[in-house]
Amino acid sequence: MDRSEIKLGILGYGVVGGGLYHILTTNADQVARRTGVPVVVAKVADIDWERPRKIQVPPALRTTDAYEVINDPQIDIVAETIGGTDPALEFVLAAIEAGKSVVTSNKEMMAKHGGEILAAAAAKGVDVQFEGSVCGTIPIIRALKESLEANRISQIIGIVNGTTNYILTKMTQEGREFAQVLQEAQQLGYAEADPSADIEGIDAANKIAILAAIAFGSHVPLELVYREGISKITPQDISYARQMGYVIKLLAIAKQADGKAELRVHPALLPAAHPLASVNGVFNAVFIRGDACDEVMLYGRGAGALPTGSAVAGDVIDCARNILHGTPGRVPCVCEGTLDVVPMDEVATRVYVRMKVADKPGVLGNIATIFGSQGVSIQSVIQESSSGDLAEIVWLMHKGRERNLRLALEAIGHLDIVEEITSVIRVED
Amino acid sequence: MDRSEIKLGILGYGVVGGGLYHILTTNADQVARRTGVPVVVAKVADIDWERPRKIQVPPALRTTDAYEVINDPQIDIVAETIGGTDPALEFVLAAIEAGKSVVTSNKEMMAKHGGEILAAAAAKGVDVQFEGSVCGTIPIIRALKESLEANRISQIIGIVNGTTNYILTKMTQEGREFAQVLQEAQQLGYAEADPSADIEGIDAANKIAILAAIAFGSHVPLELVYREGISKITPQDISYARQMGYVIKLLAIAKQADGKAELRVHPALLPAAHPLASVNGVFNAVFIRGDACDEVMLYGRGAGALPTGSAVAGDVIDCARNILHGTPGRVPCVCEGTLDVVPMDEVATRVYVRMKVADKPGVLGNIATIFGSQGVSIQSVIQESSSGDLAEIVWLMHKGRERNLRLALEAIGHLDIVEEITSVIRVED
Repeated sequence: MDRSEIKLGILGYGVVGGGLYHILTTNADQVARRTGVPVVVAKVADIDWERPRKIQVPPALRTTDAYEVINDPQIDIVAETIGGTDPALEFVLAAIEAGKSVVTSNKEMMAKHGGEILAAAAAKGVDVQFEGSVCGTIPIIRALKESLEANRISQIIGIVNGTTNYILTKMTQEGREFAQVLQEAQQLGYAEADPSADIEGIDAANKIAILAAIAFGSHVPLELVYREGISKITPQDISYARQMGYVIKLLAIAKQADGKAELRVHPALLPAAHPLASVNGVFNAVFIRGDACDEVMLYGRGAGALPTGSAVAGDVIDCARNILHGTPGRVPCVCEGTLDVVPMDEVATRVYVRMKVADKPGVLGNIATIFGSQGVSIQSVIQESSSGDLAEIVWLMHKGRERNLRLALEAIGHLDIVEEITSVIRVED
Repeated sequence: MDRSEIKLGILGYGVVGGGLYHILTTNADQVARRTGVPVVVAKVADIDWERPRKIQVPPALRTTDAYEVINDPQIDIVAETIGGTDPALEFVLAAIEAGKSVVTSNKEMMAKHGGEILAAAAAKGVDVQFEGSVCGTIPIIRALKESLEANRISQIIGIVNGTTNYILTKMTQEGREFAQVLQEAQQLGYAEADPSADIEGIDAANKIAILAAIAFGSHVPLELVYREGISKITPQDISYARQMGYVIKLLAIAKQADGKAELRVHPALLPAAHPLASVNGVFNAVFIRGDACDEVMLYGRGAGALPTGSAVAGDVIDCARNILHGTPGRVPCVCEGTLDVVPMDEVATRVYVRMKVADKPGVLGNIATIFGSQGVSIQSVIQESSSGDLAEIVWLMHKGRERNLRLALEAIGHLDIVEEITSVIRVED
């Protein structure tokens, strides 16, 4: 196709849209050279142009009507950087229907409606690319689809949410309480006023659902992702974990073996020597294990105007290359069927358990016996005298089914000698 | 193009060739699904089929004549996994001339002749892909060409040689001497009988030349890479570095600012908190800084049959997609001109200097004065009484030109009070 330029429309001029515009204009010469022709931002739609913004768009490019972008026959590629499903999904489907290639940074939309969107794109023969939807600048989606695709991936473990990683890092480095650090993160703009999507692991669940679909080549209904947040993590647990050679991180985990998959987001003790253990602050990283590549890890900023804009710009260039060569859909979605996910009760995990018990002889033995009766085997125990009549016991268990662990803990919780089961945190190796 | 399969020929059936064959046959169903059609290994050339190998190729596929692969009209893609330039370069140019796309894991050939090879490929309209030539399984080349390509990259710092990283890791963890650990690495097969390509940084120089060309979009003559190996590193230096909060790594560095570049391979003190500092053993990692992506790091195995085979297989699938869509050359080489590399004497670095001096008052001041006279400014000094009449001084300098540092050290080396300048190691932050 003989084209003198590629025209891009942007839907949603917030943080990521601004970053994308900045990159494509500031580095226009480099983008043109690497693409083959200039990539020109032709129109930008946002419902509110009064909001203060760091990066301005010339008034001539502005519109408040997304359909002015979607229906513009001059526009080749639409970048959706609105976020959420409504109205982003409608706009994206309309853009596909109008024959545009689409680039999006929208994790929620892709996690919930990725199958529908990619099917529509395949039917229409256009690209939908979404590198910016998972871990900002980190090229994890392209790595899975275009570099490691000959591997059978057995494991993806990610630190995919910067807000929670920032909070856990601060709690670890400064020995402070969750609520206090959360408040500070909100003041610094690292956490939202309503932080639940981050701290309850909803954001991370969206991301691991997207990565699992690509890595395992199956559709992944979001509700199959088990999810637990970080609000119960305490400095005491972080301190015990450190004594035992672990750090506590919010992990997004996807594993597959023999056609059965595990999908879960939860805080976990991770060995201090694990490559993910030193990923601190707002940084994200994804650790992959495949049958040929063995261990691979990709690390970078998971959010921010320019980092996420960098990923979106990379996708825009890729779509532009496909348009120039007449090959949109060159690397299609190849998902088949739905991932066979093991219910959490049946998953085998290791756990760390902390409890307050009566400080008298025989207590540890009584509790150990109940663990044993459920086949949950103990790896190590630390017992420390606490204040007054209570002692604190920290258990590290060998791998066992969640169901057995749950039944054991229910029985233990009913014992008179047990004051409180303070924490139950999984361990990943 | 309507094709029922893509045919691959392999030149050189050693470690990487074997890994590639294993992956493409073991994961043939997945490769077919992701490519669109099966990718079939049609012929494998090697001059010696008597060598013992872990992974066997059916006798019907074997040939001892590379030109049986190169000239086979049925073969679409040629994977060159011989290594070295002779005869690999001849074969690769012949394969391009025969209209094949080429995939190679050959860093030496790409570093020395990449420009010529890629120009030939462009003229012929075929792909040459070489992900396996740098850092084995790590998708660093695709990341630079197809994910981060909208960035202006200012810095690439890599641990790109597994042998030297293994040796330095062992020296660090066990406090042992270089020669002793090298010998052990040779016994374990991590170092070659002639280890000079690794320990003198030749291998790392090849790799950083390739990465710099892609990141900066310029041709990079290999001789512009300054190079220094690890054989002078001692457990004493590692120990002092640790006291000051650093680890010692062999780094491959490419930096660019205002059109001027630095290209160098040398051991360096790296802050313990740097993402590269915890990359240990035979693992490789590449740390990138770009104007939009900020910091990105990619980590994985830099060598081995399956890890490198994984990278080569990813490239084979990419070439296959291009052949199926009729778009070889979709992501071409865009290098222009030759990188403007600053001579090492003009580069500003920080250094760590260790010396043995007479143990008497005034010595430290004398030496500090000489540093000062060359404008080399001191950040910190540790002086320790050594055995007998000698003391040991360890200096950490602020950033200064290599030329000034060299002149200062020459003058200091001539002082009667200086017994020996034991070590001079650069510091990267």
